[in-house]
Parts: sequence; C-alpha cells; structure tokens
Amino acid sequence: MRVFSFFNRASRVLHDYPSCSKLLVLFTLSGGSLVAYSESQSDIGTHSVEHNQKEPRKKRVVLLGTGWAGISFLKDIDYSMYDVQVVSPRNYFAFTPLLPSVTCGTVEARSIVEPIRNFIKKRGGEIRFWEAECVKIDAANRKVFCRSNIDNNLVGSGEFPLEYDYLVIATGGQVNTFNTPGVMEHCHFLKEVEDAQKIRDSVIDCFEKAVLPSLSEEERKTNLHFVIVGGGPTGVEFAAELHDFVQEDLVKLYPMTQDIVKITVIQSGDHILNTFDERISSFAEQKFQRDGIEVQTGCRVVSVSDKEITMKVKSKGEICSVPYGMVVWSTGIGTRPVLRDFMDQIGQTKRRVLTTDEWLRVKGCENVYALGDCATIDQRKIMEDISTIFKAADKDNSGTLTVKEFQDVIDDILIRYPQLDLYLKSKHLRDVKDLLKDSQGNERKEVDIEGFKLALSHADSQMKSLPATAQVAAQQGTYLSKCFSRMEKCKNNPEGPLRFRGSGRHQFLPFRYKHFGQFAPLGGEQAAAELPGDWVSTGHSTQWLWYSVYASKQVSWRTRVLVISDWTRRFIFGRDSSRI
Amino acid sequence: MRVFSFFNRASRVLHDYPSCSKLLVLFTLSGGSLVAYSESQSDIGTHSVEHNQKEPRKKRVVLLGTGWAGISFLKDIDYSMYDVQVVSPRNYFAFTPLLPSVTCGTVEARSIVEPIRNFIKKRGGEIRFWEAECVKIDAANRKVFCRSNIDNNLVGSGEFPLEYDYLVIATGGQVNTFNTPGVMEHCHFLKEVEDAQKIRDSVIDCFEKAVLPSLSEEERKTNLHFVIVGGGPTGVEFAAELHDFVQEDLVKLYPMTQDIVKITVIQSGDHILNTFDERISSFAEQKFQRDGIEVQTGCRVVSVSDKEITMKVKSKGEICSVPYGMVVWSTGIGTRPVLRDFMDQIGQTKRRVLTTDEWLRVKGCENVYALGDCATIDQRKIMEDISTIFKAADKDNSGTLTVKEFQDVIDDILIRYPQLDLYLKSKHLRDVKDLLKDSQGNERKEVDIEGFKLALSHADSQMKSLPATAQVAAQQGTYLSKCFSRMEKCKNNPEGPLRFRGSGRHQFLPFRYKHFGQFAPLGGEQAAAELPGDWVSTGHSTQWLWYSVYASKQVSWRTRVLVISDWTRRFIFGRDSSRI
Repeated sequence: MRVFSFFNRASRVLHDYPSCSKLLVLFTLSGGSLVAYSESQSDIGTHSVEHNQKEPRKKRVVLLGTGWAGISFLKDIDYSMYDVQVVSPRNYFAFTPLLPSVTCGTVEARSIVEPIRNFIKKRGGEIRFWEAECVKIDAANRKVFCRSNIDNNLVGSGEFPLEYDYLVIATGGQVNTFNTPGVMEHCHFLKEVEDAQKIRDSVIDCFEKAVLPSLSEEERKTNLHFVIVGGGPTGVEFAAELHDFVQEDLVKLYPMTQDIVKITVIQSGDHILNTFDERISSFAEQKFQRDGIEVQTGCRVVSVSDKEITMKVKSKGEICSVPYGMVVWSTGIGTRPVLRDFMDQIGQTKRRVLTTDEWLRVKGCENVYALGDCATIDQRKIMEDISTIFKAADKDNSGTLTVKEFQDVIDDILIRYPQLDLYLKSKHLRDVKDLLKDSQGNERKEVDIEGFKLALSHADSQMKSLPATAQVAAQQGTYLSKCFSRMEKCKNNPEGPLRFRGSGRHQFLPFRYKHFGQFAPLGGEQAAAELPGDWVSTGHSTQWLWYSVYASKQVSWRTRVLVISDWTRRFIFGRDSSRI
Repeated sequence: MRVFSFFNRASRVLHDYPSCSKLLVLFTLSGGSLVAYSESQSDIGTHSVEHNQKEPRKKRVVLLGTGWAGISFLKDIDYSMYDVQVVSPRNYFAFTPLLPSVTCGTVEARSIVEPIRNFIKKRGGEIRFWEAECVKIDAANRKVFCRSNIDNNLVGSGEFPLEYDYLVIATGGQVNTFNTPGVMEHCHFLKEVEDAQKIRDSVIDCFEKAVLPSLSEEERKTNLHFVIVGGGPTGVEFAAELHDFVQEDLVKLYPMTQDIVKITVIQSGDHILNTFDERISSFAEQKFQRDGIEVQTGCRVVSVSDKEITMKVKSKGEICSVPYGMVVWSTGIGTRPVLRDFMDQIGQTKRRVLTTDEWLRVKGCENVYALGDCATIDQRKIMEDISTIFKAADKDNSGTLTVKEFQDVIDDILIRYPQLDLYLKSKHLRDVKDLLKDSQGNERKEVDIEGFKLALSHADSQMKSLPATAQVAAQQGTYLSKCFSRMEKCKNNPEGPLRFRGSGRHQFLPFRYKHFGQFAPLGGEQAAAELPGDWVSTGHSTQWLWYSVYASKQVSWRTRVLVISDWTRRFIFGRDSSRI
C-alpha cells in the first residue's frame, strides 16, 4: 500500500507543480538511449496577473490567430505590460511542419498540438483566450467582432466585440484553389490538423474499398491512384510519407494491392521543390523515380470532378484526364474573407494579400500589425527614396557626397534597405566604399546625385518577398513581441535607422529575416536539407538531422516526448491502419 | 554514418520480422520500472494459406463483427481447417472497456484499437477481411449480403454477397433509446470509438463556449452541466473520468469555471452500479457524494430537447426539466435492424434479441451461430424436460429411480442444466444425493417421477441470463472457435452430455460462463472491484489492480505499450485539452 500511495502523491505533485521538478523520463530502446529532461521553469510570474483598477490601465492587445506567428508573439510578450486577449477558431497551436507525418500516422495528431491556454498559463499570463473566429475588423473604432465557431446546441450568444489598443493579425492563409472548378468539393488539403486526419482516414478507405470482392481490376487501380497537386515541400513530403506507409505497412495487410498502388505528383513548374537548391530538386526527383512515384512536371490542373482530374500539359497544350482515388491539393495560399474585407476598408483593395511596412505595421491603418502567412512586407525600394537619401546624406548641401558623408549614412541605409546588403554580397563587395568606384574601378572622392543613383541602381533587383513558412512567421512573432516590450523605452530612445523622408530616427529596427535552412524529407529514412551558407545535405544522415531539429523545435516538453515516442512506436510496430 | 545505417537496418528487421525478435522496451519512470517483452511468436503458420483447388474445399466460415466475440473467435480459429471471411463496418478491434478513458483523453483512441488485418496475419490466416456492413442474412440459401460503408466517391460497387457453410454472427448491440423522444438527436453515446472522440470534443466545446465574454452566469452554468443517463459501469466510469478531467486539468485552464461545473448521474433504479455487490454500490455513491457528483436515483428520463432533459421522479410522480450542456446516454442495448429482419425470417419474431441454444447455435436455423451482445442463450429449464430425463435415467423402466440410476445421469444433468449446479451451491448441498432426501431429511433409496420433480423443482429459479459484457463475449468467441477446431473429431466422438430427448450424446459441451470479476473505476485513482469468490475490493490499491489487469488484457503488444505510455503521459503532463 505504501508504494501505491507514494505513486499517487507523486502523481499529484508532479502534475500540480510541474515547475518544481526536474523530471527524468527515460526511454531505453535496443541499446540506443534517449534522455529527456522536462522543462524546469522558475516559479516567477506563473501566477495570474490580477486586474487592479487603481493601476493605470494596461494597453489592450488583441491577437488574432494561434499559428506560428501568434504563438511566437505570445511566447515572448510581457504580460505585465499588456492586457492580452487571443482569438482563434482553434484552441491549440499545431506544429504544422509535421502535418504530412500525421497524414499517415507516423506521428499522431495529438502529439503535435499544444493548447493555447497551457502556453499563456506557463508564460505567466492571465488566460484570456476566446475560441472564436474574427468576422470583422473595425479599424476606425479599434474593435474586432468575433463569433464562436462551436455549432452544437449550447446556450448563449457566441458573438462579441473586443476593443483594442493594438491589434495583431496572425490568422494565416487559407487554401487557394486558383478558382479551379471542383477542387473545393473533391480535393483534400493539408493546412489544418483536421485535414491531415481526414487524409489518413481517406487513404484507408481507398485500400478497404479497393480490395472488396465486387470490384474489377480497373476499379481497384483507380481507387488506389493517389494524386498530389503541387510539388512544393508539403506535397513532396506527403507523397514520400504515403509511399512509405504503403510500402512498409499497407501492402503487407492488403497483399493484393502490391502492384496496383500508384502515386502521382503534379507540378506546374519544371521541377519539384523548385524553391530549393537545384541539387536537392534533382536528388528528390531521382529518389521518387526509384520509388516509383510518378512526377508530372509542366502540368496545370484545370478541373477536378468526382472521379477524374483534368490537366493541361503545358508543352503540348494537350488536355488529359485521369481517374483517381484521392487528390491532395497542396498549392498556394489565399486570403481569408475577413481580411479581404479589411483590406477594402483601408484602401488595400488592389493588393493580393495584406501589406505591411518593414515594421510589420499594416499600411494605411494605425496600431494594427500583421504577420505570418496572412501578410506580406512591402519593402521600400532604394531608387524610390534615392533623392531624399542623397539630401539627408549631403549634410553640407554641396550637391555632392564625399566618402565620409557616404560612410556616415551607409549603416542606416543598410538597415533600412536590406536589399543593398544582399546586393553587396552578390557582387562580393567587402567594403561599401567600393560602390562609389567609377566604371574603371578607380576610387572617387565624391559623387553627385547621378553617380549615387548609378551606384545603387541595381540593389533593388535583390528584393525578394519572404516565403510563407513557419520560420518566417515565428521570427516575425518574436520580433513583434520584442518591439512591444520596448514600446515605451524606444519612444524616447529610438533605436531604428535614420528617417530619410522625415526627421529623427525610426522607433525600432525593421524586421529582418534570418534563414536557417529548410528540410525536405523524402521517405525511406532519407531527407534533403538546405543549410545556411549554401550547404546542401542529402540522404540518411540528413533524416537524422531532421529528427533532431524537429524534436528540438517542439514548443513544449509534452509534444517533444510524444513526437519522439511516436517515432519510436513507428520504428517498432509500424503505422496503425485502423480507420478511426 | 555507421550508427545510422545500423538503426535503419534494425528498424527494417524489427518491423518486417516482429516474430523473430524478443524486443526489450524499457520505460524507467521515477525509480519505478516496467519491463515489457514483445510477443515472441514462432514462425510456424505465419505464411498465408494458398488456395489449392485440388485439395478438398475447406468449409467457408463467414464472421460478422469484430468486437470482443469476433476477435476471440478469430484469435483461436484454425485457419488451416476453415476458409474464414470477416465482415465488419470497422476494420479494427476496439478495447471497449477503456472507452470511458478515451472520452477525456486519459488514453488515446488509437491506443485501444488494433487492425483486424494485423490479427489475421499474425495468427497465420490469409487476409480475407471486408470493411462492410452485413445488410441481409439469407439463411435459406446460406448467403449474406454486404454493403461497403465507405461513403466517399470511390469507384466500384460496394455491394457483394458471400456464401457460407457456417455463419458466425457477432455484430454486437446498438444503442437502445427505449423510444425516448429526442435521445437520438441530442444525446451522446458511448459504444464506439467515434462516440468517445465526439464526447471529448464536446466537453471542450462546453468549456470554450461557457467562458466566452458574451454569456450570462446562468448560461455558463447551463453549458457546464454534464448529465449522464444510466448508472451502470460505463456511465459511472465516464462520470468519474469527467470529474477527474475537470478537477485535475480543466479548471486550471478555465479558472472561472471552478465553481460552476456540475455533473449529474441519472439512474432509474435505487442505486448506481446495481448489478454489482451492495458494498461497491454504496462505496461508489459515497465517493461521488464527496466529489460533488450528483446522483439522482429513481428517475426516468421521458424526453430530451435541444436545451433541456425532462425526467419523472418515480417516487413522487413529478415531472421536472433541467437545462444541460451535454447529455451522455449510457443505458440498454438494442437489436440491429439486420438481425431484427433475420429473426423475422427464422421465426424469432417475438424475441427481444436473437436467441441461441447452449451451444450458441441460433434457434430455428442451421449452421448459424450467434455470440456476444447481439444474442442471448435460451437455457433449457429442467422442469420442461423432467419427464424425459426421468425416462432416460430409469434404465430398467421400473417407474422409480434408484440412487445408483440417479448418480449415473447426474453429471450429464449438471452439464446440460447448469442452473442445478448453482442451486446446489445456493443450498450449500455438497452431495447431489442430498437432493433425494425426503422432507424430514431422511435418505431415500428411490424416488418416483413426482418425487424427482419435487427434488429438482426449484433449480430453474437459479437461471440467469448472462450480462452483456466483454468477458462473456470473449469467452463465447473462444468457446466457439474451439468447437470449430474439433468439429470433425467430435462428430464421431461426441464429448457433450447425454441427449435426454434423443439418443446418444451432444457433440460438444455446452457453453459455460466463468465470471472473473468486474471493475468499476471511480476516479481520483480509486476503483472498486468484485472479485471471484464474493470478494470485494475498493480504493487506491484496486485502481492499481485495475491498471495491471487492463494492461495485461490488451490484445497486442502495440496497444499494451501505447496504453501504458498514455497512462504515464497523463501522470506526467495531464490530459490534453486541444479541441481536435
């Protein structure tokens, strides 16, 4: 009995005070061992901040969305300075890079999600999270209107307004069908956890239906034809996962399907993974060829019916249709209706996506920020500002810029216009002074406005919009929460670059993205990775690098332990084929 | 690189040949350790049996259903003797006693399911499983008609007939609403894995909706009123699980709900757990009272609307309605339409449920067996057969039975009519000869038919129909598969009791249920158990007994490891409140 009550008490203690324990969880597996220490957090600030009417009112921040951008913002925001309210139709954060693994049960859906309320509580905030969808933003009155997305028969109105001092929009993108007929009705997507779960069920449905005794061979083949539209990282990873699932697990349980399963990836460009390095792209194509995954490049899908997918082969202009069992549409990001409406309000009608400046502030609107997939940064061009830069740099108003004058402003220019930095790197120029050399390569003592324009004229060609990745969103969230923490401090002591078109300095440094590389798991325990510094790595070792990076990037120890034990489980028992 | 390729190879080997390895999985947790060896199976018979037209055709067995009865049958059937086809709308077996744990995330749904195809493959059978529903049984032509329950747009007809030599019906029961209006529309159930998953989502919905800023205090209370109809083991366990989930996890994340969550159990009888020993019943009631779970006994639900549940208090005859957030209906078992129709065909129209004899053979129909929740055994009464028994026993046709003659047949009587055994036990009679004593307790040398009738007249009062539990179903499945294995052998050498109403002996011993006890987990790491031999155990130690019994009863090593790691996960991190 003693031992039982010890366990009981230990359970309660561990569970009630996770912060006071350094907990050892040991998985010993076939000689390899993996030791994971649970988060050891100090108790400081874990108690909820109570509203005190006598204190000056804290500024109200409303955050829309709980994806990568939102969660990074919540992770670092100072809850003692702001009254934070979070609105999202999902009460959890999902580790989206593992969604393709969820589709085939390599990792369970629950293992990649973490409740938002856990986050806020752990970070010492009062829990003010509302599971609801923002249906309207009223920027003029600093209000958002929300509606609960729970559709069962619970009592009470699910509609409520929220007032804000600062609004942070991080609602992410939605599926973009490019208005292709039939896509919404007949395709699967891979943006939400539910999507991944539906795909998993659907794959098993295809197999169970295909083996029924009443089907012809042709019908079996059709039902086991899996089509992936979009050869980007998500589509490619799903194709690889599906191939592994089929070969390692399903054909053993559905022996008659051995030779009739077919996986096709349709890509409109000339290569799959075309945002990656060329070496990765061709490694992936070769791997897929060996695996028997068909890659159809240069094809654009024109419509999807309930039985067939129709596409146009670009080179020949031909239209062809193929029957399928399941289609996963994994291409493009669209703008949500609530943001479309908001963009109309603030004069961004012609924009494709919500546009911010380099400080993530929504253009044409005060105190509203947007980050992650729902927004894009409109980087200012140097050439647009070239005259004002020149004027600001030319302190003595001589009409020419000396090397000294140029050097005085170059740091601010480099911060304000990051494309210049990229340009210097692309030209292998170590010293910015080299920009001022004449066409023969001779140093000049000073340049006039025309010479200055000429020197910087090609820099803008280096401008690139940021990819819609978790990495970008997470960095933006962290950046913004840091700005919020120093809002007061930086009002008096601005830390940003010189305002060329105004006076003084910008309050903050603009957001700058740092690329840490990108993975593409290709199945069969192989992966490709683009690492910083133009490094490319492929093969089995890269897959192990992928495992460690993805394990370390988990947002909580709970999900970390679960993801690792899911991998271990798959390794020992294979993937589950139960249709639940 | 070496170490990576070692792991890769090891992974493949382990995965492809699970049977050749004795695999050590070690979870070391805070000093307590648990060692689990993976199933070590011999390779004999793991290869699929190929159809060979030259061999005499194997008898075709069609099994409907993959619950406890079905799976136990599949586990032990000799695949070399029978051509087995399995039809079930679910391609997995679910460990249903853990369903209440799934409703609150103590255990994950995937951890309690095992694909049927895995079973068949592991047991050395050719995989002939069809994910479909049986829609019609045509006993006259020995055929069943099946229809695929996959409702997406895959090609091919999902309808097919199957011919059988033996049909085994193990489709389980369905929800029984007792025709109470509104139950189907507004209540949750707890029979399938999907039901448990829906309940889990719904609980979170209730909490998320209740805390929205737009609700009144009254509305919050309504949404957080959880009603359980039925005070049987399932209902009580769910109430306990829910209480734990709320107190251990949810109130910390939804602090404002602390004092307004209410759980009510409605029971039509006078006590909850009324099939258990009285001591357990009152232990449970006391525990619930301490926990603040309201138990309303003597109440019958008369209707359920979208907002309110209406019941009749039996003692007062009053009707009252209470608003609710969620109702779980956990009472009674009904008959599926396909069996209703089958019963009409075979003349069991007036029966409440499909009826079999003591050998699990469906009455009024050849070569059809029924087991588990979908059937009931119609135990023959002694008094109905008393004259034929007397005649068979009275070998010398003297009109009286000597003690010797009686002793010659008593074993057969005891086997054929198990109620007699129970009667002897209830009367504390050690020797059956005591039955023949006269009313003064004097031994008699012989009895006539009237005396014989008198001696056995009260035995039938001990007849009880078997409860609809996993334990009964599993024992029936095992029993039937053993009969099937010895079908040929026992045709020539019958091993059953004497046929009193015919000649010779019965082919097999009739099915006899052995009760191994029953658990009722009551939350807060406490459980109650009824153990064999009239033992009752309650409290924390019983919960640990429960853990070990349920871990050991898992149908595969995969589910065993998963269930144990789920328990461990809950112990360390609590339950997940993500709404997925």
